[in-house]
This record gives sequence, structure tokens and C-alpha cells, in this order.
Amino acid sequence: MYDLIGFDADDTLWHNEPLFVATQAQFRHLLLPYHDGDWIDQRLQATEIKNLKHFGYGTKGFVLSMIETAIELTEGRISGAEIQQIMGWGYEMLGAPVQLLDGVRETIEFLASGCRLVLLTKGDLFDQEGKLARSGLGPYFDAVEVVADKSAATYRAILARHGVRPERFLMIGNSLRSDVLPVLEVGATAIHVPYATTWHHEEVPAESLVGLDFVQLQTIREVAPWVWSRRA
Amino acid sequence: MYDLIGFDADDTLWHNEPLFVATQAQFRHLLLPYHDGDWIDQRLQATEIKNLKHFGYGTKGFVLSMIETAIELTEGRISGAEIQQIMGWGYEMLGAPVQLLDGVRETIEFLASGCRLVLLTKGDLFDQEGKLARSGLGPYFDAVEVVADKSAATYRAILARHGVRPERFLMIGNSLRSDVLPVLEVGATAIHVPYATTWHHEEVPAESLVGLDFVQLQTIREVAPWVWSRRA
Repeated sequence: MYDLIGFDADDTLWHNEPLFVATQAQFRHLLLPYHDGDWIDQRLQATEIKNLKHFGYGTKGFVLSMIETAIELTEGRISGAEIQQIMGWGYEMLGAPVQLLDGVRETIEFLASGCRLVLLTKGDLFDQEGKLARSGLGPYFDAVEVVADKSAATYRAILARHGVRPERFLMIGNSLRSDVLPVLEVGATAIHVPYATTWHHEEVPAESLVGLDFVQLQTIREVAPWVWSRRA
Repeated sequence: MYDLIGFDADDTLWHNEPLFVATQAQFRHLLLPYHDGDWIDQRLQATEIKNLKHFGYGTKGFVLSMIETAIELTEGRISGAEIQQIMGWGYEMLGAPVQLLDGVRETIEFLASGCRLVLLTKGDLFDQEGKLARSGLGPYFDAVEVVADKSAATYRAILARHGVRPERFLMIGNSLRSDVLPVLEVGATAIHVPYATTWHHEEVPAESLVGLDFVQLQTIREVAPWVWSRRA
């Protein structure tokens, strides 16, 4: 049915956002003597967004944004030991075991038996290759594309590189903004499998979805049957 | 003559190491009240090497390593304002203008007219794509491969992906360790164009070069004539 199937990585194949949420809770706790929790969250979020253009996506940039926010919110009174603590959370995140979502392994095994698969993710190349290796899913993927941004132009370039026409490409991911909208824009097919939580930066206004034709499934377990049914 | 020519990026196409050297001098100066300069350099270098397995290559990891070293060497006495200063150097490095080495533009223009070119670099994907865009050389490259490590296996995978046999591939770069040795190992051709300074991590022992057949040119200006002469 398809010549190439693309999978997003974080929160599509393996849990990711909970690590950030847990670290952010520790960060809030660390700074509670200085400010109230909501304000801490807001400032961290604003720093993250501001820094995307310098750092791109990924854990290292998140750690740097936490340090920057901590210095700003304490007017420089944060101690070296506390910054060391923040860096320690970063090491924990970078070394955290990769936990696959339920049903991922079977889905990937099934689809890889009939189609080329590509891992298509933003984030930090070094992080993502490490996570793929630790996930054990590496051998099922024909290619790994770590991209700075998931725009329509990015998808066009990847399809050209793999010699695949848009109507023969299927993308699966948890982000409407990155895995669905630009894929529809190039004329390919997209399946949205929502994750429990969505990173604020990936949210899209409801009106941007009006009139768009894409598939939404509740879990990745439904993906293989859906692809199979289209094949019949 | 060749089906694909690979170029390293940092210190092959544009100046990079001087930015790190200059920042490291500022870092040393910041910590001189606490330790002597050699010890500061040694500790930073040791932290960088230790952190490669967590962070990979690139500026963000370097900034985190500076912060970690500063906290360690001051036993936590470093102030928030000083850490802010370190982060400021990071922003300057990330936003620094891309300065091409002498002769790069003409060389790339000439070679691109007769051969597919690929940018083949370690480092941070986000940084490297940004630098390529700012360099104005983007349109001359058929592909950009930002890799976690330049091993023989990495080169084999890239050649397979581009459908190029090793004897039809030429790699050009300033690092014997990354751009020459693994390229010779896969049976391709390598040109070493040394840069004024070599990052300590990229140095190789002289005995590892015995009996190896590769070309060394003094500047990138000599590359196009060399390729042309092989064509004749």
C-alpha cells in the first residue's frame, strides 16, 4: 500500500514528555522559596521558546534553559550546588531507559515486514540515535532522519531523497503540528495517534484542522490493522 | 572522476576552533582567582571528554561542560552572574558569523559543477544546518549528513545510502581521525587539509599513519586542481 512509512519518535514510539514534566516539577520545587509555582512554569516555558532558535530541540537545550531561568528568577542568588542539581537531572534524562509505548514493538515488526520504515524526528541527533539504539528497534528502520524542523519543505526533501511520491508515503505521529499538518500539505497521508500530554509548543489551534482529511487512532495498536485494511 | 565528494564542515569549510579557543581563554580568565590556568584548561578538557558520551559534539555540550567545570573548580562558590556570563559566551558562539576559509567558495563552486557534493559532519544538527545556511554554500550540496560519529561503519552506511562505491568516493577534511583514517578503511580516497589548530580529541598518534596512502594538501585551494588532474 505504501512505499515508505514514517514514524515520529518521542511520545509516538517511546515515552518522552513525562521525563520533561517530572524534571520540570523538580525545577519548580527547587525555586519555590523564590516564586510561586505558576510563575516559575511560565518563565521556564518562555525561556524554552525564546531559546529554540539558538538551541533547537532536545535535552541539552532544556537543561540550559532551566539554568538560565533559575539564575534569572533568583536574580543570581542560586548556588553552584543547586545548578549542579539541575545538571544532574539532565544527566538522568539523557541516560533514562527507553520505555516503548504499548503495542509499538509488534506494530513496527509487522509493518517492517512489508514496507520500508523511516524514523523521522526533531530533537537532538545524538540523543535520538542513542534512544533508537537502546530501544532495540534500530534494525527495523531503513533510515533515520533527524531534522531541525518538520515543515512541508522538510517532508518534500525527504520524499525526494528516498524517491517516494507523496501518495505513497504515510506518516504516523503524536503531533498535529509536526506529523500531520505539513504531511497533508505535501499530499501524503497522516495518522495522528495522540499522546496523553502534548508539549505546549506543539499545540495547534482547533480552527487550523477544519476541512483537513487525516486519520486519528486511539493507540498505535490500531495502526497495523488500518494499514492492512487499506491494502486489501 | 568521483561520483560523490564529501566535505567536512568545521575547520575545513569555515573557521570553528578559534571560537572555542577564544571562549576557553575567557573561561580561564574567569576562574584564575581560584586556580592556575593550566589546571583550569586540564579540568575543562577532562570534563569535555567525559561528557562526549552524554552530550555528543557541539556548542551546547561545551557550554554545559564549562558550567560543570566552573562549579567543580570553585567548589560551588561561582555566582549566578558568572554562570550567566558563561551562557552568554555560548549564545555568542551559536550566533557567530560563519567565516569561510580562503578559497572555499571557488573550490565548492568548481567541484559542484561536475560532481555531487555532500556535507559530512559531526556536531550538533541544529548548529550545523544553521551554519550551512548562513555560509551561503547550501545550494551547492546535494545532501547534508550530520552524524553522531565518523567511523568506517558510518561512511559505509552513507555510501550505501547514496549508491556510491568506495572507489568513487573522495572525502576532504582537516581531521586525520575522522576524515581520513575511517575513509581509507572503507577503500575510498581521502585528502587531508590540516587546519592551524587541531582539537585535542581529534589528534592521532603518528604511528597510526604508517603505511597509509592518502593525500595531504596545504590549503583547500589545491583541492580542485588535484581532482582535475586525476580526471585528465
